[in-house]
Amino acid sequence: MSLTGVVGAAAPVNVAAICGSLRKGSYNRGLLRAAIELSKGAVEGLQIEHVDIAALPMLNTDLEKEGRFPVEVEAFRKKILAADCFLFASPEYNFSVSAPMKNALDWASRPPNMWGGKAAAIVSAGGFLGGGRGQFHLRHIGVFLDLHFINKPEFFLNAFLPPPKFNPDTGDLIDEDAKLRLKEILLSLKALTLQLKPRA
Amino acid sequence: MSLTGVVGAAAPVNVAAICGSLRKGSYNRGLLRAAIELSKGAVEGLQIEHVDIAALPMLNTDLEKEGRFPVEVEAFRKKILAADCFLFASPEYNFSVSAPMKNALDWASRPPNMWGGKAAAIVSAGGFLGGGRGQFHLRHIGVFLDLHFINKPEFFLNAFLPPPKFNPDTGDLIDEDAKLRLKEILLSLKALTLQLKPRA
Amino acid sequence: MSLTGVVGAAAPVNVAAICGSLRKGSYNRGLLRAAIELSKGAVEGLQIEHVDIAALPMLNTDLEKEGRFPVEVEAFRKKILAADCFLFASPEYNFSVSAPMKNALDWASRPPNMWGGKAAAIVSAGGFLGGGRGQFHLRHIGVFLDLHFINKPEFFLNAFLPPPKFNPDTGDLIDEDAKLRLKEILLSLKALTLQLKPRA
Amino acid sequence: MSLTGVVGAAAPVNVAAICGSLRKGSYNRGLLRAAIELSKGAVEGLQIEHVDIAALPMLNTDLEKEGRFPVEVEAFRKKILAADCFLFASPEYNFSVSAPMKNALDWASRPPNMWGGKAAAIVSAGGFLGGGRGQFHLRHIGVFLDLHFINKPEFFLNAFLPPPKFNPDTGDLIDEDAKLRLKEILLSLKALTLQLKPRA
Repeated sequence: MSLTGVVGAAAPVNVAAICGSLRKGSYNRGLLRAAIELSKGAVEGLQIEHVDIAALPMLNTDLEKEGRFPVEVEAFRKKILAADCFLFASPEYNFSVSAPMKNALDWASRPPNMWGGKAAAIVSAGGFLGGGRGQFHLRHIGVFLDLHFINKPEFFLNAFLPPPKFNPDTGDLIDEDAKLRLKEILLSLKALTLQLKPRA
Repeated sequence: MSLTGVVGAAAPVNVAAICGSLRKGSYNRGLLRAAIELSKGAVEGLQIEHVDIAALPMLNTDLEKEGRFPVEVEAFRKKILAADCFLFASPEYNFSVSAPMKNALDWASRPPNMWGGKAAAIVSAGGFLGGGRGQFHLRHIGVFLDLHFINKPEFFLNAFLPPPKFNPDTGDLIDEDAKLRLKEILLSLKALTLQLKPRA
Repeated sequence: MSLTGVVGAAAPVNVAAICGSLRKGSYNRGLLRAAIELSKGAVEGLQIEHVDIAALPMLNTDLEKEGRFPVEVEAFRKKILAADCFLFASPEYNFSVSAPMKNALDWASRPPNMWGGKAAAIVSAGGFLGGGRGQFHLRHIGVFLDLHFINKPEFFLNAFLPPPKFNPDTGDLIDEDAKLRLKEILLSLKALTLQLKPRA
Repeated sequence: MSLTGVVGAAAPVNVAAICGSLRKGSYNRGLLRAAIELSKGAVEGLQIEHVDIAALPMLNTDLEKEGRFPVEVEAFRKKILAADCFLFASPEYNFSVSAPMKNALDWASRPPNMWGGKAAAIVSAGGFLGGGRGQFHLRHIGVFLDLHFINKPEFFLNAFLPPPKFNPDTGDLIDEDAKLRLKEILLSLKALTLQLKPRA
């Protein structure tokens, strides 16, 4: 793809990475660390920043005063606006996204919408089906946010089936097969992001 | 239905009413006030209590210590367990439920699940289609919570189309047609609740 | 439950069983045969009839003449109306129900709706997640049809993971664990059907 | 967009238009005729062909013999493969897509998938909310098909609210506002199709 082929010059794709779990040892947070690690080696041309959502107040539009958002929300919205695309690590809670994730999605969608027109990918770790059914609510929400999700491949990971997928102490992803699959997600996200970019 | 026909004796059906918006002037909160009003007159045999969710912390299972939940969560879970059925006033945010609503749903679903096996109904007020598309995520979440939603009638209300539906100062429902439709919701919820009750 | 405890007298619950696959060797059809087998032994009080949907024409309301449906449709609608509840064996095609299944659902929903107010359960066999994601469209369709689905347990079965789940020649279910899980579905369906029945 | 600005040279975007209703007087079919009309005048650079799905047999993979599909299916699949993008006129039946639409989607998804990687848009006409809730199943199905839907604008049209939207005899769209909205759909579909095209 020509945009990335310019010798030494192509600016990296900026990825804002958001984790829907606030747990310290979150496996979904572990997926994001692994993605950042991959972006420093195996996958070229991506710069991934984890954008923390723990400080966001619970959505209540009464908190918007004279067209201004609470300071944590302003800061968050700026990071979303600045990103080229998004990587969501989205645990499945009761077949849907987590409340913290929904809260972050909603705050940055308040007019003017910060998400619009950008590419996104979803990864999930969890029990049972690994989160494969909750991603679908996120995709649906994304229609309103005007996000363009990659369709292939899908990534969800049962964190509890042998062999061990995560270091139980650190929450770091240790499964090599999962890392390979995660790499494919990043490549697909990068490709769609570049496709959607306005052409010179 | 015979259970309610026992002279003077039938215990009322206890409804926990939950509003997904934290806004002071919330129209969805107005729907709940109208439902409570109806339960004191036009609809017999229902006792509706508004259960506030504003004090719940954002879901983070690290907050569960030695099998105990934060005190606000414990109090909330007790009210959910005590109810016979649920009335959700659920605004649509980005095609889905609001973050505060998801947060409340998730906290009371933490094992042991407090929602299981009970009846529920959804009402929504909002712009455009009035919330008719966000209810569907709530229904899907309810499968995991083991809720049994009434199917008919549906209730969503465009709050902004003339004639005025709500008092703009108080957020009170003032539209008589909407009140009639809301009454039908309550009757349907009551009927399903009684159907699902274990039989003597 | 008292209704079933009446000595020797309780009429069985009539289950209409519908398979979304038209393939001869369909594993989903195999699930229905296994359910019928269970109803003759391990599960009391259920009478399951497989209702074939292969002869239904593709939905086109131009085929309705003077308020009458094509003859195959009339026959199908009568069987749906006569049933107490439904067992859907629903393969997942592209995250959704199959076209033959949707066709059957739609024909019997033409006014007057034949499905209304009854209980239902879904079972699925397939590759990958076994159909666990397609059931959810069927549940959503069921809101409009006014079906009440059991929430627990869920049943989906990866037909291709070892050990063998189906006899490859006959499509018969041979996995004992799956049979036990299928039995739980039938018990749950029976219980909900009886709960929803009007009380004397 | 530069690709379309090349003097006299840009090849038009080929759109395969598919209608989910088989009714002769279908309003959704009327939307497609209006889109074709627009492509001959108000919207440049689109060539829209209506691809009829009435002749497709009901999906049954037993009909695939030695890797070959029934002749009508082969012809349909070829047209899907040849198109640059898709315009679905999708009526809402019981909150979901129609059976004929699902049937067409599934046949062309049989390996090798004919839909993959292309842009798509959905328009709907119907009663009540005009089909605004059924589009969402189509979007979900499209994840598996690897379709990229435009997010904005949405198009659904209540065919029965005054003023008249369709000529009752011909099913032709006669509402000028709806035509303007339809034009926006076509422009958005064209833009996304060009964005997704591999770059020289």
